[in-house]
Amino acid sequence: MSDTAATVTTITAKVFVTLKPSVFDPQGNTIGEALLSMGYGAVEDVRQGKYFELTVRAGSSDEARRLAEEIADRLLANPVIESYRVEVASDKDAA
Amino acid sequence: MSDTAATVTTITAKVFVTLKPSVFDPQGNTIGEALLSMGYGAVEDVRQGKYFELTVRAGSSDEARRLAEEIADRLLANPVIESYRVEVASDKDAA
Repeated sequence: MSDTAATVTTITAKVFVTLKPSVFDPQGNTIGEALLSMGYGAVEDVRQGKYFELTVRAGSSDEARRLAEEIADRLLANPVIESYRVEVASDKDAA
Repeated sequence: MSDTAATVTTITAKVFVTLKPSVFDPQGNTIGEALLSMGYGAVEDVRQGKYFELTVRAGSSDEARRLAEEIADRLLANPVIESYRVEVASDKDAA
């Protein structure tokens, strides 16, 4: 019943880091060629990226998102060649 | 106005590959320690995974999802230590 402070809960933030579209992706190309040789001709392109799950203590999903975006910008992504996207589950999922 | 065949469009399928919870993740741990030393004490855990964007030709998002799941199972993930999840945008996004 307290309305003085936000409750701090554990929230999972998902961070997706991908190469910018203009950057050549040799890993993705190699996977694409492997798929072609396996008979998956319907696959036109493959891009490989990184995926991180951060478990953070935060008072709200907005706070968790801000923290994850700062971490992605400072450590997880190289902003010269990569872009990132952050997804945070809504507050009710963190219970 | 044709109702004889599904139109084949280009659909992006996203595949997330993560280590199973019981598998030790040294990369994630190293990132977690780096974050601690950078002052991000609110981060309790970091898990690193892989992320793939497959551009496929398919008649429906369901068909694209089936194809991506088969590819994840056969090539992108090691089912002994990894699990995967596939996300496909709805058909209208593929236009």
